[in-house]
Amino acid sequence: MSKGEATRETILDAASTLAGTVGLGGMTIGTLAASTRLSKSGLYAHFRSKESLQVQVLEHTRARFVAEVVAPALTVARGEPRVRAMFENWLAWDAQPGGCLFVAASSELDDQPGPVRDRLVRDQRDWLDTLAAVFRTGLAEGHFQADADPEQFAFDLDGVMLSCHMSNRLLGDHTAEGRARRAFEALLATARA
Amino acid sequence: MSKGEATRETILDAASTLAGTVGLGGMTIGTLAASTRLSKSGLYAHFRSKESLQVQVLEHTRARFVAEVVAPALTVARGEPRVRAMFENWLAWDAQPGGCLFVAASSELDDQPGPVRDRLVRDQRDWLDTLAAVFRTGLAEGHFQADADPEQFAFDLDGVMLSCHMSNRLLGDHTAEGRARRAFEALLATARA
Repeated sequence: MSKGEATRETILDAASTLAGTVGLGGMTIGTLAASTRLSKSGLYAHFRSKESLQVQVLEHTRARFVAEVVAPALTVARGEPRVRAMFENWLAWDAQPGGCLFVAASSELDDQPGPVRDRLVRDQRDWLDTLAAVFRTGLAEGHFQADADPEQFAFDLDGVMLSCHMSNRLLGDHTAEGRARRAFEALLATARA
Repeated sequence: MSKGEATRETILDAASTLAGTVGLGGMTIGTLAASTRLSKSGLYAHFRSKESLQVQVLEHTRARFVAEVVAPALTVARGEPRVRAMFENWLAWDAQPGGCLFVAASSELDDQPGPVRDRLVRDQRDWLDTLAAVFRTGLAEGHFQADADPEQFAFDLDGVMLSCHMSNRLLGDHTAEGRARRAFEALLATARA
């Protein structure tokens, strides 16, 4: 990695955390300059426009999400253990400062057409498809009832995660993770053969 | 209602829809002036500051939410029918232009301390408490298992609603309401005696 690339990574890490706190739209080149102690002109040279910065922050965060949540789960045994790993990795991800940027960005951008929203929609579809695909490994392994619906499971599990995010971050409810785990176990119990 | 109060109600209706689209933070006195065709100075006279406008929009939306979602459900038979009415009323509420403002505002404000967030936290606590209380009428009526946990049910049902909101509004997934209803029926089936 060149020095320029390393700087860019450092900036995008800071921007990802900042966007999780103030929103993608609330993040400006000015606030990012303050939080990274870099000059505004230097940041403009890297990112050109606010929209370009937002898209790059989403792409950077997506890469981190794949590395921290998805990839480690794919090394776990197929079926229920892998579904469980994906869920636990997501809980750890959402517990980081700023929380899951994708949840925050989803509400923020749902009515704002453009390339940033398009990027987010593709990411969210990929996430739901990934959850459904991991659930399918459990169907193939005979861990779940043959007529269980993978897309419904993905919808339901995403709901558990969203509820956990809201309870935890908005209400400061420290029982949220415990409740999310109970909800997750109930979903698995329903799906099991 | 005086003419001044009627004007204020009209403005707050428009502001509530606008905030559902661009976010409470994205709404300015300027954009609100444009969407209501009132003067900025007239709006300042009504609301004094952006923060005051945001709090008043939440209070106004809360009153509408109680009138459209909560109050009609409370006239329905106790227990499962009332739980069902609350859920269906919420689906209709979220299908309105802009969607449920409380969902949008939750992600937006979760890391932004202040009176607007405080207002939202109280509203969200009231909503979860309301869902738990309605579930308790089902316990009292013998519709649900005696050891079912009302707070867990509220957490789970809120997750179904959040997942529905995201699928519908971000992904434009027209199967979202159907999936939400299936998830709701599964929650009820688990809770039932």
